[in-house]
Amino acid sequence: MNKIKRLRNLMRTSGVAAYIVPGTDPHASEYMAAHWMEMQWLSGFTGEAGTLVVTLDDAGLFTDSRYYLQADIELKDTGITLMRASDIDCPSVEEWLISRLKANDIVAVNSEMWSVNDYETLLASFLNHDISVKNIDLIAPLWTDSRPPIPSSLLYPYDEKYAGESVEDKLNRIRQTMAKHNADALIISALDEIAWLLNIRGNDVEYNPVVISYLLLEKERCTLFINSAKIDETAHRYLSSLHIIVREYTEVYPALSALHGSVMLDPARVNEALFAALPEGTRIIKEQSPVLIDKSRKNPIELEGERKAMKQDAVALTRFFKWLEEKMANMRTDNGLRLTEWDLMEQLHEFRLQGDNFIEESFGTIAGYKGNGAIVHYAATPDNCATIHPEGMLLLDSGGQYLDGTTDITRTVWLGGDIPQQAKLDYTYVLKGHIALARARFPLGTRGNQIDALAKQYMWQAGITYGHGTGHGVGHFLGCHEGPQNIRTDMNPTQLQPGNICSDEPGIYRTGQWGIRIENLVAVQDEPTTEATTTNDRFLSFETLTLCYYDTSLIEITLLTDDEKQWLNDYHRRVADTICPLLTSDEASWLRQKCKDI
Amino acid sequence: MNKIKRLRNLMRTSGVAAYIVPGTDPHASEYMAAHWMEMQWLSGFTGEAGTLVVTLDDAGLFTDSRYYLQADIELKDTGITLMRASDIDCPSVEEWLISRLKANDIVAVNSEMWSVNDYETLLASFLNHDISVKNIDLIAPLWTDSRPPIPSSLLYPYDEKYAGESVEDKLNRIRQTMAKHNADALIISALDEIAWLLNIRGNDVEYNPVVISYLLLEKERCTLFINSAKIDETAHRYLSSLHIIVREYTEVYPALSALHGSVMLDPARVNEALFAALPEGTRIIKEQSPVLIDKSRKNPIELEGERKAMKQDAVALTRFFKWLEEKMANMRTDNGLRLTEWDLMEQLHEFRLQGDNFIEESFGTIAGYKGNGAIVHYAATPDNCATIHPEGMLLLDSGGQYLDGTTDITRTVWLGGDIPQQAKLDYTYVLKGHIALARARFPLGTRGNQIDALAKQYMWQAGITYGHGTGHGVGHFLGCHEGPQNIRTDMNPTQLQPGNICSDEPGIYRTGQWGIRIENLVAVQDEPTTEATTTNDRFLSFETLTLCYYDTSLIEITLLTDDEKQWLNDYHRRVADTICPLLTSDEASWLRQKCKDI
Repeated sequence: MNKIKRLRNLMRTSGVAAYIVPGTDPHASEYMAAHWMEMQWLSGFTGEAGTLVVTLDDAGLFTDSRYYLQADIELKDTGITLMRASDIDCPSVEEWLISRLKANDIVAVNSEMWSVNDYETLLASFLNHDISVKNIDLIAPLWTDSRPPIPSSLLYPYDEKYAGESVEDKLNRIRQTMAKHNADALIISALDEIAWLLNIRGNDVEYNPVVISYLLLEKERCTLFINSAKIDETAHRYLSSLHIIVREYTEVYPALSALHGSVMLDPARVNEALFAALPEGTRIIKEQSPVLIDKSRKNPIELEGERKAMKQDAVALTRFFKWLEEKMANMRTDNGLRLTEWDLMEQLHEFRLQGDNFIEESFGTIAGYKGNGAIVHYAATPDNCATIHPEGMLLLDSGGQYLDGTTDITRTVWLGGDIPQQAKLDYTYVLKGHIALARARFPLGTRGNQIDALAKQYMWQAGITYGHGTGHGVGHFLGCHEGPQNIRTDMNPTQLQPGNICSDEPGIYRTGQWGIRIENLVAVQDEPTTEATTTNDRFLSFETLTLCYYDTSLIEITLLTDDEKQWLNDYHRRVADTICPLLTSDEASWLRQKCKDI
Repeated sequence: MNKIKRLRNLMRTSGVAAYIVPGTDPHASEYMAAHWMEMQWLSGFTGEAGTLVVTLDDAGLFTDSRYYLQADIELKDTGITLMRASDIDCPSVEEWLISRLKANDIVAVNSEMWSVNDYETLLASFLNHDISVKNIDLIAPLWTDSRPPIPSSLLYPYDEKYAGESVEDKLNRIRQTMAKHNADALIISALDEIAWLLNIRGNDVEYNPVVISYLLLEKERCTLFINSAKIDETAHRYLSSLHIIVREYTEVYPALSALHGSVMLDPARVNEALFAALPEGTRIIKEQSPVLIDKSRKNPIELEGERKAMKQDAVALTRFFKWLEEKMANMRTDNGLRLTEWDLMEQLHEFRLQGDNFIEESFGTIAGYKGNGAIVHYAATPDNCATIHPEGMLLLDSGGQYLDGTTDITRTVWLGGDIPQQAKLDYTYVLKGHIALARARFPLGTRGNQIDALAKQYMWQAGITYGHGTGHGVGHFLGCHEGPQNIRTDMNPTQLQPGNICSDEPGIYRTGQWGIRIENLVAVQDEPTTEATTTNDRFLSFETLTLCYYDTSLIEITLLTDDEKQWLNDYHRRVADTICPLLTSDEASWLRQKCKDI
């Protein structure tokens, strides 16, 4: 009997008309441990984002445009309808359900998988339709066979020489914020926030060196709820030295139930089950997590670490692109050579492994050859990947987790043959936008969505745009995506602040032809005021952290302004001067050639 | 006994610890009838925006940076402290009050002067401090002497040949939106919304051809609440022909109390007293007014009218600037000539009066000479205005109400003498930003705050910015400021739509030296898709409506790109070709000279 059918039987027994599996975990993680991939297990769809909704006679999987192609294939013959959530006419999960349910029906959810905010939105939308919501986990009774356990890798201390600030100082600062809000306690459930606050790391989630746990910070106590198997002697000594109380992971619920006084929590991150565990009469202070904003402002040591990681990363990328160019040259004379997107991913990984302090990749490398480059979030597999030829466009988006910091870089290169004029135009529009953002100055107080258009203005003139964000926040040896800041069209009240790290990655995608994306990481920095300044406004600008050449053969140079050319030449000079000393003389002269003035 | 003292006596009698006068009217108007200028009457401050807060032993007037200088002077020796609301460290009105009041104190307000939203915010902020809010009008008992009455000018029909759409069609469309929301009734209290919806105009408020009234739209009925003195035979016949029921202005309250069913209202516009009048059990549907968004999408006839009004306006401005240039030339030889900012305002008005269908100005002209130009919203008076000399910078911001449409234009010109290089740079940064916005293309769905930075990017590079919005919506023979769309930094979810009219007015202000602002009105239009388009996105662009030359003597031409030069030359050619035929040959050749290619 298939899983959906078994779920429906269970739903009937439980008196439930619909069940929603939101594709999240109890920690509001973007990257999840396999244990929590309920949506994927139940639907067979392996994409990273989606919500599965099952009624007694219908089922829909809501996912965004990145995954349409994949979901179309994977949902075939499952009886689950793909709901294209990025399309303007796609109903919301709630609307879809309302049109299928009747008054007095019950919708069930596992409240651990819902943020307080999302849960409240769900409740509110059903309110006028007499549909109620019941908290019940219907997956656990079904997924008994071969469900991956919650990971139990060891927690390890993250040296202050990398973190740049002591745990005492961080806790003090957060407690000051709590005091300002009159909060007796603060619940933190986001894994990267806990890792940052306690200067700890782990291996529980691929690409993310986090430790599965909850943290309860009180005025006098700090309690970490974590599987005891993850605490070895070193970890124990470390946590003891910080006077951190360690309790079992599941004990967070009784601990919250026993709280008195006022409790601060971030309703966008803390899950509904934690919230519901709080005793009645608790004064709830709903605020964005103070850890989130502190974590996003990198300290000087974190920034110095990022710069160091960037050098390691640049060496790996330079070696990779030199290797690739040589492979392409060989292919032209030797028809027997074969190379796939997967081979490129493996080779790049090899080069990164040679770097100091490299731990793992910061996300699955995207090597998109020709039309595959146009599939945003494309993932080649050994069994399903394109063969590379010495011609056409290659998009390569990858990153590394180094003890010193996290990297994320995209370069698009031409592998050989004549370059179509449209390819040059596209590349140049993207590059102009990328440069416009990189060299932007803006007053303190500016939000990311105010400067997003700087990266798009040139392609917009040609009637071209792209659907993904222009910039995401980046963690320091943590998530390669982090908030609260970003640079994208969506409304986000967060103002850019000195120390923020963001990506700068405009792109143009032509289905079946090519994808072009150029991505550097940049750090927000203070800009000295000039004589021309008319106001007291403090200005900010970006320091470009990434150090890798651009493929200048793709540039339509006549479209660049003098300012843009100068920026590009200055950047290439900096790349060559910084990276060449770390290379063999052969590699260095190859890189100098790539970095020569245009 | 002064007014504040009398108010305090009344507060004591009424058991009230504080009274707030928010500087608004019952219709959420920007421009108000004198009858409702309670804040100004009580404080002596004559600025257009501000909130006066009076406790038993303290008083503060909260206003924004535009009015600091003026308020400083006008509040001298009043015992009222100027609260600089634009400053980062300025407390909010609520914070200021909380720090002065104690538990169980009562704050009084006249709920007619508060939008539902603002009133709820007020309540919420006092909630945790045990301070309650009481609805009571304490100004009416005090302001008995020489209070201007509510205006009672005649209502007149606005011909469909100008409005471009019948009232029946407009009402049908709004009723369809009501039906979508299951609303039995819609309350409209914004004066420009009523004027637009019923194709009526009046003379109740300076610069705004509106009619003071409330409108209640039901499925089968449409009731206008208005002072009967405003309805003459023509108006009566017109309203009867539309089956509009006319009741007295004050009867809106009993009418609302008698409603059954569901009522839709815009909580940002409808006042709390109207809201409170609704019977208990009413289902309230809080939505942005559907009239607001409909009104902001000008129909083809309204747009054609705007273009016609622009020609009239351009003729007036061209004649004015030619007259001014001649005056300056004469001054150089004749020391006896004297000219003030006020004279300029009067002369410009004279020229506008010669135009077809000119009714009145759309706001008080700003003629800011030298340093006065740096005072945003500067208002010269006959007794207090600068004398003009044939040297330095003049900023002129003005507009007209024509039956065909509303105009708003700013030009900055150099009156003589050597131009400082910084002045040229400033003018050129402003012009480059103005052009960047004017020639922007952007996908449908773009909000104004996403493209605001296009107008600022060049001055930002020089560490310069400005505090006012880059673009406001403009009505059609209605308010020269209208929503919901705008182009500014503030978060505003409104997406720009074809038919929207906006200003494009970046500026640079140097205290004591000069103010530079360049402003055109632009209309959002559909952009044909190009071959390069990668997606299904519809693109939008702006049609520049305003037709007046720029002072090219202020341009640092080396800073302009070829695209910018071409835009400027194309624009000047269009101005000359369109306006010269409407001028005498003398005037035309003068304008052709001003419009010659750079």
